[in-house]
Amino acid sequence: MHLRFSLNVNKHSTCTTGSSSLSFRSHTCGELRPADVGEEVILCGWVQYLRQDLFVIMRDFSGLAQILIPQDEVRLQVAVTFTISVTEMPTGEIEVLAESVEILNVCRKLPFEIKDFVKKSESLRMQYRYLDLRSSQMQYNLRLRSQLVMKMREYLCNVHGFVDVETPTLFKRTPGGAKEFVVPSREPGRFYSLPQSPQQFKQLLMVAGIDRYFQLARCYRDEGSKPDRQPEFTQVDIEMSFVDQAGIRGLIEGLVQYSWPVEKDPVSTPFPCITYEKAMKDYGVDKPDTRFAMKLMDISKTFHNTEIEFLKDALNQPGGCIQAICIPDGAVIFFVIFLYFFPKEVSVVLVKADGALKSSLNRLMPASAKQQLLQMAQARPGDLLLISAGTQECRPLLGKLRLQCAELLEGSGVAVRDPSAFHFLWVVDFPLFLPKEEDPDQLESAHHPFTAPLPEDAHLLYSLPHKVRGQHYDLVLNGCEIGGGSIRIHKASDQQHVLETILKEDPSLLSHLLEALDSGAPPHGGIALGLDRFLSIIVGAPSIRDVIAFPKSFRGHDLMSRAPDFVSEDELKSYHISVNWPAGDEGNQEK
Amino acid sequence: MHLRFSLNVNKHSTCTTGSSSLSFRSHTCGELRPADVGEEVILCGWVQYLRQDLFVIMRDFSGLAQILIPQDEVRLQVAVTFTISVTEMPTGEIEVLAESVEILNVCRKLPFEIKDFVKKSESLRMQYRYLDLRSSQMQYNLRLRSQLVMKMREYLCNVHGFVDVETPTLFKRTPGGAKEFVVPSREPGRFYSLPQSPQQFKQLLMVAGIDRYFQLARCYRDEGSKPDRQPEFTQVDIEMSFVDQAGIRGLIEGLVQYSWPVEKDPVSTPFPCITYEKAMKDYGVDKPDTRFAMKLMDISKTFHNTEIEFLKDALNQPGGCIQAICIPDGAVIFFVIFLYFFPKEVSVVLVKADGALKSSLNRLMPASAKQQLLQMAQARPGDLLLISAGTQECRPLLGKLRLQCAELLEGSGVAVRDPSAFHFLWVVDFPLFLPKEEDPDQLESAHHPFTAPLPEDAHLLYSLPHKVRGQHYDLVLNGCEIGGGSIRIHKASDQQHVLETILKEDPSLLSHLLEALDSGAPPHGGIALGLDRFLSIIVGAPSIRDVIAFPKSFRGHDLMSRAPDFVSEDELKSYHISVNWPAGDEGNQEK
Repeated sequence: MHLRFSLNVNKHSTCTTGSSSLSFRSHTCGELRPADVGEEVILCGWVQYLRQDLFVIMRDFSGLAQILIPQDEVRLQVAVTFTISVTEMPTGEIEVLAESVEILNVCRKLPFEIKDFVKKSESLRMQYRYLDLRSSQMQYNLRLRSQLVMKMREYLCNVHGFVDVETPTLFKRTPGGAKEFVVPSREPGRFYSLPQSPQQFKQLLMVAGIDRYFQLARCYRDEGSKPDRQPEFTQVDIEMSFVDQAGIRGLIEGLVQYSWPVEKDPVSTPFPCITYEKAMKDYGVDKPDTRFAMKLMDISKTFHNTEIEFLKDALNQPGGCIQAICIPDGAVIFFVIFLYFFPKEVSVVLVKADGALKSSLNRLMPASAKQQLLQMAQARPGDLLLISAGTQECRPLLGKLRLQCAELLEGSGVAVRDPSAFHFLWVVDFPLFLPKEEDPDQLESAHHPFTAPLPEDAHLLYSLPHKVRGQHYDLVLNGCEIGGGSIRIHKASDQQHVLETILKEDPSLLSHLLEALDSGAPPHGGIALGLDRFLSIIVGAPSIRDVIAFPKSFRGHDLMSRAPDFVSEDELKSYHISVNWPAGDEGNQEK
Repeated sequence: MHLRFSLNVNKHSTCTTGSSSLSFRSHTCGELRPADVGEEVILCGWVQYLRQDLFVIMRDFSGLAQILIPQDEVRLQVAVTFTISVTEMPTGEIEVLAESVEILNVCRKLPFEIKDFVKKSESLRMQYRYLDLRSSQMQYNLRLRSQLVMKMREYLCNVHGFVDVETPTLFKRTPGGAKEFVVPSREPGRFYSLPQSPQQFKQLLMVAGIDRYFQLARCYRDEGSKPDRQPEFTQVDIEMSFVDQAGIRGLIEGLVQYSWPVEKDPVSTPFPCITYEKAMKDYGVDKPDTRFAMKLMDISKTFHNTEIEFLKDALNQPGGCIQAICIPDGAVIFFVIFLYFFPKEVSVVLVKADGALKSSLNRLMPASAKQQLLQMAQARPGDLLLISAGTQECRPLLGKLRLQCAELLEGSGVAVRDPSAFHFLWVVDFPLFLPKEEDPDQLESAHHPFTAPLPEDAHLLYSLPHKVRGQHYDLVLNGCEIGGGSIRIHKASDQQHVLETILKEDPSLLSHLLEALDSGAPPHGGIALGLDRFLSIIVGAPSIRDVIAFPKSFRGHDLMSRAPDFVSEDELKSYHISVNWPAGDEGNQEK
């Protein structure tokens, strides 16, 4: 049982600043220090537990304080329901003697105890989020988020003269914006849309001469159920005029450095920068985790004259190659790999203690090839080689295996990645367009249609658009994309060409943007950082839900209030919509 | 015609901070000073106009700079389409000689010129908002907004230890929340709702031990067409634990003082504070404009023995009274009042130069009554008296006339209110409940059901709820309510009583909040400031649209992008809704 508890609430705090200003209390529990001995203090907080019927251990957001209760204070003794051993407290040196006590509220039996070691199911945490947030980890996460965001604002506003501008979230549906929530208006058939990002507005602000814009922008994405995604999320949204890629990258490096939590090792800048091509070649992925090596290698040479049928076939096709990764000490996961996830397109080679190979390929490889393979891969006894043959598509497969093997190794106790390391990386020079999956003769934007081409590729936009690289940059942290942006097209004619001729989209849907570009748009570019993801990596949280105060469940539900919920037909009338109930489901409505 | 324009864009700015850091430019136009003479500078901006075929007047957000163009630079001379006289520039003392020029973009003929003196219609401004925002007034408004908000954050976070927490905007519909937009989900019949404020979340955060919460919160209100309202708006949302009214009021006074624009006269604190009762008695309104007097007076005594029928009737009814306001120098609007808006329930008395009265009541008033009237009202020749008789309901009528007369007087050139004055005022001790308009035997919350009663009235909650005053406080500035808040009910049993017994609402709809209060909720209270309104008063804007980057029109439309817009039936399928077209309107759909 928890009791709300405070000492001497009849007078006000004399603090004029800090966490106790304007409050009933004079101090927080966690800030009591030997220097306060002899002072009369007022504390407000929760009874964490009672100890020996004599002490109340009181908790507030800042920590614990042990308070000696005079023996005539009977009421509190009733509250003793458990006594547990006390972990060392930062204020353990001093003792607080209660002079008066006021019980401000009482507490029902809680569904779980507010103790950090008490494990709760995810759904229970979500249902009673207001209790879950009392945990020291969640308090840390939310308070760190606030501090980090404050530092970001100081850096952008005060150091670099950015203007914080709020943009609308009730907007017009983007052409093809399948992931946008719709919001019915009171005009029949007309809907607002909740935008996935303020992309159009930030560019319009550049045309408007705002010059340096930023916003902590709430964004919306209706993706149904995707793991660790939220229907609403927050991005640090930035746009600048008269700037190039290097300018934006420098700004962001400074931003990260400035706002980085003081308790972590400082971040050094500039961040390494690699091209998309190099990332794919070395890591098989466009957001490489560079905390460990295990890079992809082209070992085609080794099998130049091979008799092994599928390798020969692979090498004979256009662009064919044989790729490998070497997993140091991979022997420990040799069997696990086969058990769990081993794809049949990949051959596994174990380098035994005596240097011999254990593999299905072994029998078909001449000794010289084996020797060459070990040399090329710099493989030593105990290592594991994963080999894949095909075109360049075999790289993403190995890239995925690389990450899975790192996890398996760590699960087996082999240190692969330093959990306290933060590896930032820029990935640049992405292709501007990619073939559409459903119709490879058509092109679609690799990121979005507003990205400008690299200056040296700009001439190809009108001749060989599939060859054009864009001025897009991704910021990657420990193998997660935490941000992305680009220098934008700022000439209306280029934008029109991209929309109409290359992407075959109806440019009239973006006529306001085209008109704006045609009104003297400055060269401009920007970036958006995924704040939730960034924070979850900093605090080492398994999910972005752990850095959001009131997140939705996997299925997009608020388990506390039970949103989304049914709305009566009557309430929908003013929006001129009605629900199409699937056959047999109508009964659900009344719930 | 406007040309984008810069000098020497081939090298980067060497500034590491400020508005030119990381940019192509080295200086902004407005910051060039005699001390820069001899320096090579890089400017980026718009060609405002050309002068004598020799000078380019260049504009960026910071101001203008005059640049001398060498005679061989022919291209620019083509751009001369108008020459107008130059107003004095802050940098007028120095001259910039162009060494090189790069034209970054060209510009079509604009729908209006970017000159402050060019008057544009509201709809044209909205349609080309990205041009409208280039005006110096809109630049000032948006930049002031950013700075003011930054100072507010510094005050709350850095000075008082508040935590900036983001709360969801996809939430559950509030019982009776007729003004909430609905957002269909992918589950048939289930809708999210866009909340009007984070009220529930801020209280839950107090239960969660966040202790001091704030947020610049985006809020939503679907009110159809109301003048100078926006479907989405921003409030400075604040909540604190272990605090009383005085604590919150002190916090807000400090907040306003800290964030107040330096170019304005400083704000003095504490703000005056009056009760709701006194406000209604003196001003006939709960948000009085205290920049001028013209207070309401009870002149019942004067007509104690009157023969005038309707006054006698008024005084004979329970609570009957006769109220008046005296308008100094009101003679100048005597005829206008009758022309424009004069309500027949009000009698007008003009005090003529000779002290005689001109009024329909004149004939029926004995000389002694006239004398008493002039004395009570302290009316002098040239003043106007407005008299209304009835119950207390006649006060709001006079309160409204008081404001209308002030406007009329100002329109006639009589100084009533100092346009540079900012009068802050707290209004407190509101009734907690009011009789429902449609059923006066039922009570409804005067503000919202979470407001705590005044401690001295708390015992009445269970006996005479209509007599209970609440711990609600409104912040009023120059007669506009710019904020409101309260100390909340923090005991579940009291909250349940208010919801169930007094308001006859189904408490199960707020079961999560009741459960939360029952989990040891601390005493807490908070406030929300309407940021848009507050800013519009500070900058003297006629509408909140002038402090919002991309506002909606009166009818809730985005005239630039044409939102809300039609969405195909197909796109609505995944949300299981269809449009109910009003008869004969279906053809509209394809637009």
